[in-house]
Amino acid sequence: MRGKIKILDIEAGNLAIFINPEDAKQWRIHPTDLVKIESGKRSIYGSAFIGNIVEKGEIGISKDVLSIYQFSSGEIVSLIPAGTPESVKYIKKKMRGEKLKKVEIETIVRDIVDRKLRNTEISAFVSTIEINGLDMEEIAALTIAMAETGDMLDIERKPIMDIHSIGGVPGNKTNVIVVPIVAAAGLTIPKTSSRAITSAAGTADVVEVLTNVTLTLEEIKRIVEKIGACLVWGGALNLAPADDLMIHVERRLSLDPRGLMLASIMAKKYAIGSQYILIDIPTGKGAKVESVEEARSLARDFIELGKRLGQYVEVAITYGGQPIGYTVGPALEAKEALETLMTGKGPGSLVEKAIGLAGLLLEMGGAAPKGKGKIIAREILEKGKAYQKMREIIEEQGGDPNIKPEDIPIGDKTYTIHAQTNGYVTAIDNKGITAIAREAGAPEDKGAGIRLHVKVGDKVKEGDPLFTIHAESESRLDKAIVLARRLEPIKIEGMVLQVIENL
Amino acid sequence: MRGKIKILDIEAGNLAIFINPEDAKQWRIHPTDLVKIESGKRSIYGSAFIGNIVEKGEIGISKDVLSIYQFSSGEIVSLIPAGTPESVKYIKKKMRGEKLKKVEIETIVRDIVDRKLRNTEISAFVSTIEINGLDMEEIAALTIAMAETGDMLDIERKPIMDIHSIGGVPGNKTNVIVVPIVAAAGLTIPKTSSRAITSAAGTADVVEVLTNVTLTLEEIKRIVEKIGACLVWGGALNLAPADDLMIHVERRLSLDPRGLMLASIMAKKYAIGSQYILIDIPTGKGAKVESVEEARSLARDFIELGKRLGQYVEVAITYGGQPIGYTVGPALEAKEALETLMTGKGPGSLVEKAIGLAGLLLEMGGAAPKGKGKIIAREILEKGKAYQKMREIIEEQGGDPNIKPEDIPIGDKTYTIHAQTNGYVTAIDNKGITAIAREAGAPEDKGAGIRLHVKVGDKVKEGDPLFTIHAESESRLDKAIVLARRLEPIKIEGMVLQVIENL
Repeated sequence: MRGKIKILDIEAGNLAIFINPEDAKQWRIHPTDLVKIESGKRSIYGSAFIGNIVEKGEIGISKDVLSIYQFSSGEIVSLIPAGTPESVKYIKKKMRGEKLKKVEIETIVRDIVDRKLRNTEISAFVSTIEINGLDMEEIAALTIAMAETGDMLDIERKPIMDIHSIGGVPGNKTNVIVVPIVAAAGLTIPKTSSRAITSAAGTADVVEVLTNVTLTLEEIKRIVEKIGACLVWGGALNLAPADDLMIHVERRLSLDPRGLMLASIMAKKYAIGSQYILIDIPTGKGAKVESVEEARSLARDFIELGKRLGQYVEVAITYGGQPIGYTVGPALEAKEALETLMTGKGPGSLVEKAIGLAGLLLEMGGAAPKGKGKIIAREILEKGKAYQKMREIIEEQGGDPNIKPEDIPIGDKTYTIHAQTNGYVTAIDNKGITAIAREAGAPEDKGAGIRLHVKVGDKVKEGDPLFTIHAESESRLDKAIVLARRLEPIKIEGMVLQVIENL
Repeated sequence: MRGKIKILDIEAGNLAIFINPEDAKQWRIHPTDLVKIESGKRSIYGSAFIGNIVEKGEIGISKDVLSIYQFSSGEIVSLIPAGTPESVKYIKKKMRGEKLKKVEIETIVRDIVDRKLRNTEISAFVSTIEINGLDMEEIAALTIAMAETGDMLDIERKPIMDIHSIGGVPGNKTNVIVVPIVAAAGLTIPKTSSRAITSAAGTADVVEVLTNVTLTLEEIKRIVEKIGACLVWGGALNLAPADDLMIHVERRLSLDPRGLMLASIMAKKYAIGSQYILIDIPTGKGAKVESVEEARSLARDFIELGKRLGQYVEVAITYGGQPIGYTVGPALEAKEALETLMTGKGPGSLVEKAIGLAGLLLEMGGAAPKGKGKIIAREILEKGKAYQKMREIIEEQGGDPNIKPEDIPIGDKTYTIHAQTNGYVTAIDNKGITAIAREAGAPEDKGAGIRLHVKVGDKVKEGDPLFTIHAESESRLDKAIVLARRLEPIKIEGMVLQVIENL
């Protein structure tokens, strides 16, 4: 049928296309059918919904479409029922345990980006990879296809450095310090980060407290070519767009097959033109990677994949068994990072990790002799050069470079949990800390989170403060307190764990 | 949140739940989130959509919900964001190749029926079964769980007979003749059938030309207890409701894993209380099962599954290499079946198959001595007893028992394809015939379809009619003619297949 576009004020999470019941009958379109909309040269696919919300002759589109395609209201387009996408054949080939060819992987990725494959088909693909795996050749093809079906950045300053931390450790604001150190040494590092998905704060959430993180690729190019660095939200860019669509499905199934994880991370680096990449794998209880063996095996895969993509990759296995620094939550972490940059000093777990990683990048990029990277990185941090670079980043991205740690608003509804016994802190449960910070409102409420007063190994006396919960509302604070009491995320040696009463 | 139900005039194919953007923000609900609606004791799950189509405080529900749950407009309900369903764990267990326990399979099926698992998760389940398979114990547990999460029928007349034909052969109106023969012999056969999905006519579509097929379970019970038989549409009943939800996903992936196929068929038989079941597996080129080896292996699985379910199963492997009888399409087939019942005579392929299958059922149910079933079945058909029973079925289901074949309206836009050479008919392509009949409008246009003038082995002369296309509209007829010319579904020995011109 031909019809008139009507943009509906509906967010469906996918592309929902609404057709009037009369048109649906005439064109034999049923609910959930895959339909194709053609306008000029481009076409896009979506799921059919049928209802009187649109008139006969109108084609209603959920406003999700605007993020991928610029339709205008009233535009005349064709709507065509679409058959089973070709790439379903290749998903089935993988189900049979056969190896996919490059062109088959490209077709799958292209169909995902065009929304020709919907969650049902993507789920079949993800599940099949979880069961049958992908070999390194397939992963490389997938990575390149994911990058090339999105926008690509071409920055003139070389070499281009990058760093990526595998998630899972709360309080990991490390890269907010690493990036300005590396750029202050004269290297180029266009850093894109994600927002929190299951954590209390992603790097993008933290930086957003200090400056704007939603930039276009053109703005990034301009800024990075001028000052050598940026700290932006990758989600605002159209980098490897198939990735988000697959991750949505992986999350619903709580799956994270290694082949997809590798492709997901490296496709974004490939799209942004990164040449020297440092992968940080925090390892320990409650981190995404719990054992050093697993971290080593993952490291080998990153290095091998990098080779196939023409990238030089190094991997740092870091300690991730407790939160980094003393703060968890966007504003609290931004404050801690800014203080560290301004004073050149900060919590050991944060400063040592940041200069360690920055040092490796300086050596990789040729800005420090082998073995001297960490010393030079420390100097850059301590002499205020990293802070100076951070001010440039904040200013170029549209923030106030004069922002002070005390200007940052922190949730003023607080509650402190105290030690109930004397002893040493033996463990801080990453997942518990994250859950409490999220219950308090992080990452949506930027001021919400947790400030730790102790770290593993500290000696405490009964009544000493262990951690303070910050929230922006009393109701959120109350919920977080309830969870904190239930989880008891900080364990003290000699603590009575449970009392069975003789009732 | 608590909110007021608003039933929206939208068909989404699934349960879509619309929330106002303000409520979504306050309750942190994002598009596609799984949300639970609680009302009194029951709860139901759906996907969140966000938009101004509902006011703050309103909870909009697509009208799909009405088929599964009776909400009333304005009713106050709670809406709660739901986490990852427990059964996702079991799907992942199967991904690891482990065997599922009965209770785990039950949880998966229950979550499918409650819409807690949506297409994304069902797709992961179906894909995993395609790859890792199910053993017979798992299939039996799945079958029982599918039946028990839906309505069950309890008919007092025993024994209860049933027949099921695996699809794929066009023109297969056989069961419209088998059922009245079996009931005329005094046995009980509550036959439920499906509508066409990919074929040109399902048994339910054919019977619907003669009488109403959309009945409630109560009506079926009354009719079957009175006259021993019915011929109804299973889709109108809540039998094994998980099945349709899985089949939707299987169709989109063009998958049909054997474990699910067995469970799908047998769950409906189990729900309806069938004790003696005859499975008809048409075998041949273009049928669903192409080789006799595959048919035998499938037969063994049906018999084994029946044993585990307490059912006695026999399997007939029949010839399915060309259409059954001479007609394809709801009205054309209804007419052919009715003529056969009235006169006791009809095309050999139809009559021999019908009395063969009916005879087996008579023997299974004790209404004929071993080896005598077919003779008795033929007698019942030829003496008009089957026609008499069919009249009762038509009348009890709400149709006119005096309906004559010539009363049945057939599409009056026709076109006949003629032989272009002399020779013998060597093949009639099932898939081609089905495609042309569907292009002509079947099954939606009941009068559309194909009338064959020849069958395999017939001798034809150049210019003899091969088949006539019937349609209800000229535009449909034109499309069918184009397809017929392209497919040439009837092959004649000695035919020039292609001419390469010397241009």
